[in-house]
Amino acid sequence: MSSSFGTLFKVSTFGESHCSGVGAIVDGVPPRMSLTAEDIQVQLDRRRPGQNKLGTDRNEADQVEILSGVEFDKTLGSPIGLLVKNKDQRPGDYGAMSTIPRPSHADYTYRAKYGTHASSGGGRSSARETIGRVAAGAIAEKFLLEEYGIEIVSWVSSVGAVDAAPIDMETISRALVDGNDVRCPDAGAAELMTAEIMAARKAKDSVGGVLSCVCRNVPAGWGEPAFDRLEALMAHAMLSLPASKGFEIGSGFAGARQRGSQHNDPYVMKPGGLGTVTNRSGGVQGGISNGEPVYFRVAFKPPATIGQEQQTVDYDGSDVTLAAKGRHDPCVVARAVPIVETMAALVLADLALIQRMRR
Amino acid sequence: MSSSFGTLFKVSTFGESHCSGVGAIVDGVPPRMSLTAEDIQVQLDRRRPGQNKLGTDRNEADQVEILSGVEFDKTLGSPIGLLVKNKDQRPGDYGAMSTIPRPSHADYTYRAKYGTHASSGGGRSSARETIGRVAAGAIAEKFLLEEYGIEIVSWVSSVGAVDAAPIDMETISRALVDGNDVRCPDAGAAELMTAEIMAARKAKDSVGGVLSCVCRNVPAGWGEPAFDRLEALMAHAMLSLPASKGFEIGSGFAGARQRGSQHNDPYVMKPGGLGTVTNRSGGVQGGISNGEPVYFRVAFKPPATIGQEQQTVDYDGSDVTLAAKGRHDPCVVARAVPIVETMAALVLADLALIQRMRR
Amino acid sequence: MSSSFGTLFKVSTFGESHCSGVGAIVDGVPPRMSLTAEDIQVQLDRRRPGQNKLGTDRNEADQVEILSGVEFDKTLGSPIGLLVKNKDQRPGDYGAMSTIPRPSHADYTYRAKYGTHASSGGGRSSARETIGRVAAGAIAEKFLLEEYGIEIVSWVSSVGAVDAAPIDMETISRALVDGNDVRCPDAGAAELMTAEIMAARKAKDSVGGVLSCVCRNVPAGWGEPAFDRLEALMAHAMLSLPASKGFEIGSGFAGARQRGSQHNDPYVMKPGGLGTVTNRSGGVQGGISNGEPVYFRVAFKPPATIGQEQQTVDYDGSDVTLAAKGRHDPCVVARAVPIVETMAALVLADLALIQRMRR
Amino acid sequence: MSSSFGTLFKVSTFGESHCSGVGAIVDGVPPRMSLTAEDIQVQLDRRRPGQNKLGTDRNEADQVEILSGVEFDKTLGSPIGLLVKNKDQRPGDYGAMSTIPRPSHADYTYRAKYGTHASSGGGRSSARETIGRVAAGAIAEKFLLEEYGIEIVSWVSSVGAVDAAPIDMETISRALVDGNDVRCPDAGAAELMTAEIMAARKAKDSVGGVLSCVCRNVPAGWGEPAFDRLEALMAHAMLSLPASKGFEIGSGFAGARQRGSQHNDPYVMKPGGLGTVTNRSGGVQGGISNGEPVYFRVAFKPPATIGQEQQTVDYDGSDVTLAAKGRHDPCVVARAVPIVETMAALVLADLALIQRMRR
Repeated sequence: MSSSFGTLFKVSTFGESHCSGVGAIVDGVPPRMSLTAEDIQVQLDRRRPGQNKLGTDRNEADQVEILSGVEFDKTLGSPIGLLVKNKDQRPGDYGAMSTIPRPSHADYTYRAKYGTHASSGGGRSSARETIGRVAAGAIAEKFLLEEYGIEIVSWVSSVGAVDAAPIDMETISRALVDGNDVRCPDAGAAELMTAEIMAARKAKDSVGGVLSCVCRNVPAGWGEPAFDRLEALMAHAMLSLPASKGFEIGSGFAGARQRGSQHNDPYVMKPGGLGTVTNRSGGVQGGISNGEPVYFRVAFKPPATIGQEQQTVDYDGSDVTLAAKGRHDPCVVARAVPIVETMAALVLADLALIQRMRR
Repeated sequence: MSSSFGTLFKVSTFGESHCSGVGAIVDGVPPRMSLTAEDIQVQLDRRRPGQNKLGTDRNEADQVEILSGVEFDKTLGSPIGLLVKNKDQRPGDYGAMSTIPRPSHADYTYRAKYGTHASSGGGRSSARETIGRVAAGAIAEKFLLEEYGIEIVSWVSSVGAVDAAPIDMETISRALVDGNDVRCPDAGAAELMTAEIMAARKAKDSVGGVLSCVCRNVPAGWGEPAFDRLEALMAHAMLSLPASKGFEIGSGFAGARQRGSQHNDPYVMKPGGLGTVTNRSGGVQGGISNGEPVYFRVAFKPPATIGQEQQTVDYDGSDVTLAAKGRHDPCVVARAVPIVETMAALVLADLALIQRMRR
Repeated sequence: MSSSFGTLFKVSTFGESHCSGVGAIVDGVPPRMSLTAEDIQVQLDRRRPGQNKLGTDRNEADQVEILSGVEFDKTLGSPIGLLVKNKDQRPGDYGAMSTIPRPSHADYTYRAKYGTHASSGGGRSSARETIGRVAAGAIAEKFLLEEYGIEIVSWVSSVGAVDAAPIDMETISRALVDGNDVRCPDAGAAELMTAEIMAARKAKDSVGGVLSCVCRNVPAGWGEPAFDRLEALMAHAMLSLPASKGFEIGSGFAGARQRGSQHNDPYVMKPGGLGTVTNRSGGVQGGISNGEPVYFRVAFKPPATIGQEQQTVDYDGSDVTLAAKGRHDPCVVARAVPIVETMAALVLADLALIQRMRR
Repeated sequence: MSSSFGTLFKVSTFGESHCSGVGAIVDGVPPRMSLTAEDIQVQLDRRRPGQNKLGTDRNEADQVEILSGVEFDKTLGSPIGLLVKNKDQRPGDYGAMSTIPRPSHADYTYRAKYGTHASSGGGRSSARETIGRVAAGAIAEKFLLEEYGIEIVSWVSSVGAVDAAPIDMETISRALVDGNDVRCPDAGAAELMTAEIMAARKAKDSVGGVLSCVCRNVPAGWGEPAFDRLEALMAHAMLSLPASKGFEIGSGFAGARQRGSQHNDPYVMKPGGLGTVTNRSGGVQGGISNGEPVYFRVAFKPPATIGQEQQTVDYDGSDVTLAAKGRHDPCVVARAVPIVETMAALVLADLALIQRMRR
């Protein structure tokens, strides 16, 4: 509880680090949609570790298998079972680790909650849990693109103190984003970000960052007041991601410093109907999409696992010095790009189906 | 859809500006808890407009009536019906307004969604919708305080460009917060904020702001991975509020600029058990509370209704100049304080009841 | 928990016998539908006690008030608040009663569940709880009739050992059903049923009965496999009614005694497309409507409140003799007719909206 | 939609006849419970076809694999993924069949709903869908037995016109039920039932039947008024099973023919506290368990697939004669025994966890 998300387009995920596999059931996928494992694999490949020198050396293949709900490459309308087998299925022997709650990890809180914890440390709170989401969300993306022409693109807009210049949200594409390893379309900033990540790695440290995301061609009318406003569901989705600490839509926290006369988005006639001159609302007014691009930002803290020594205590309160062994991602934001995109897709696909109740 | 929030401690709200009344049904309230209308009225009084010179002159009494679920001032365990009658129950005649979608209001999006809109303009997207939430959340607060000793305190930490100094989250209280009209416990900042609000009013403009909130004494173990992490539900709750544009927990967006060695919260033995030296996590690790104070911030945009003239277009695309008549709140953050507190209480009360399934 | 029913067309109810009022919030009602209190009142009037000599002498007006969601007699798409004030709002002084759990009432089980119980005995388990359902379901009926031409008619098909002759499900109407007080369209059986009820009353006893219900013009394709099959939701709805003990759809329990060659419904071409020659399936195959009339039966036990003396024990286990004072309905099935109809409407309206996700 | 069931103890299933596999995710399973695949396999073995001469010759091994949520044979509290691979994974070529909707099958309704249909005919409406439920429910059974001592036993109480004599609900056990192939503990009736099934098979026909089920040691206090009464959820669960047509609890339809003075269950002091002399309520009053055995009956229609020739029409309305080829179960009730038990367990486990919110 609760491993499900969505009302009509609904995903339930399972799996942790060292079990047989991770995956999801996706219920509510419209029937008669073409779908193959390759459609899903694209985003899983963008998510997996070991893609380049910036991340961990672990190279996880993460091949998805469609278990059900698809026949002759067409969806049936029945639930789609998705499975990605774990390479390393041995519950770990973390030995001494099990007596020390790692700072800013979930060891302590999982124990408080469940009275037990997966031996691997990460367990269900590990990043592998997101595989099921990404696989499910890749289906949602395909549905949104084919039915509504919706394009969802996320990119890295800051790493540590390095900020990218503003990006043109009308033209940014996944191809542009994937132009460099750090997935920042501002090439100059990308170089600085790469340097920052390499510096953190060298210092046996880690570094946080911020992702931006835009969803283009979302029709006006999506989002369910009062509690399931589009931005509320989007915030829910994004804050459910490991390591995320913040969400803002449109003008966000900066907008809170403005006056109304600066912040309001006046209307103007556009080719397809009414639109707004500016888009400080981030494509949403009163919790409902207005046809302008939906855009938002998500903050990710620096990974908690670092090679530097940390002074902390074990479960008995005795002082210990902790330093992570092995190789760890010094920065996760590049890999988080497809995760943010697919989670956004899950939110929008659900709202799309719900809005169909009003015709 | 969807006017319900929560799984076990569940609130459903109804009502818009000019109907008979607004209110809520609260299901899942534990039985045998003492409860009177006065317990609820306190937060409604803090929420209502017209409390002081900073807000609108409208003075809405907003008296709550308990319709069911309580007998002899004790809860029965059955759903509690709550009703606040509207003073002005005449559907408005907004005349010309109905041909012009007000910038950054929900007129246009409601029409896109429902093909109709309440005559009053605001309708369900108006701030009156929050009355049901506040009333329901006041019950949640009482439950949390009596059963767990949980204290929830929110305050205004910025208005426009004016920031409050850091507040001691261990000692901040509602009495301190209510010490001035702007509800900022930093007296010096409060004066500047007041000046900023008065200036905005004088300029027929509005101004945004940020609220901070702390929840003390939340036991370790609350929050439901993967999708219903404590911070995910809290973000969902906060972004479902009218005019909110952002949410961050603990270090938030600033944390994304840090290194892991700066950001991690080492453990230390405290009187009641393990705790953390710092609290950049904001009381949550892996989506589960760790016993430290849960704290977060919510950004609110400047109110969209301003007296200044705005250049925009009507539904037909013809140019119009719009200037709001009458009196309007130039800043809503002071009144948002009890709303943020009660929404936080709804999240925590639900997670409390869910966690009881594991005993 | 759980006072809500439905996924998209969702009702939440509140209220017990002696509180201020009972009612409901109905979320998901399509916008721009004409709706007045009179539309709802019709079914409330058919539900209320004291309509004729067969029931209790209590005459409860049960006037519904629409609190929200409707403006100028048109739905807004926002939640509709419904309130029926209780005439007698004094929590009862049931004195001695409170030490004796009445046989086959909910006194004992409510106390086991909640550790308390409404003073009025019935509390939330009383028949007054159904008022909110009927009011909500009356809206669902209007939606189904106007959008799909769906007609829902229930009638009394047995009282005690008296069975009505088979009724023509194509022509049965509410006018025919209301042709006599017992609401059995078989006039001869109705007389015998009336006699049975009067005999039970004279003997200070009560008597059970069975309701039949048909839903005509339900389009093919409604119902959500696997768990939310049409008949599963219908059974859920019906068994959630006070005093109901059984549900069967189509051939029901009698069908279990047949061979497949007798039971199968062969297809035939009908004016509007394929149909079935017979309808032992009750309009549902594989959990999905097939366009034939959906019909089912619901068994209601005899009311537990009887004037006869009963030998039982109090909460301490001491022998007591119990005999209900005052006037009580000896048979509730006639009044259950609108309750069954409106609950069926709630199920179908929800499935209608859900099916719209597939277009 | 909707392939999920339950609020806290929640199962989501996937899979149809000829895909890679069928299975489930079970969320909300309490942590630290011992669990192995063998615990689950027992009920899957009782469910599988080809166990004896009464059923089809198809022998499906149906070996379950635990994918996640369990480590070192202990549950983690995280979702448990369950997979049973399909032996025959080739989407069928049903050729001519695809132009003829089989009488009383779901071919026609699935096509009306989804605009497509699994090639295998049965697809998601096939009995294989129940594998995920049985696997999930076997975990629920283990939880209920270990935590509360709850025993759930179902048996065949009628086949066609053959009824079993009343069974002692206090002593009936799975061992007794499995004493013969037809799973009827009345040995004499079992012989007649067997003869009836063999006769149906010889006639290329099928035959229906009724299952009874008792749940012993359910504590008083489970069940959630108003909509999620214990019997409402149980009816929902049972009517969601393929081929089920009716549900009755306690006295059921027979109770509707009685007077209140016959039907009421007087209280009496028992060793563990108050109990009832009789149990016509079926262990439930006001929707809440009263500590007496919960018992109910479920009607199953005769299987729709028969070898006899049937006169029907194809999708174009042309007359056709249809006769199923191959081997088919003439009666499914014996195999339905573990399905009914495990579905009952899912209902009770969910209500158990929900009731824990009140402590």
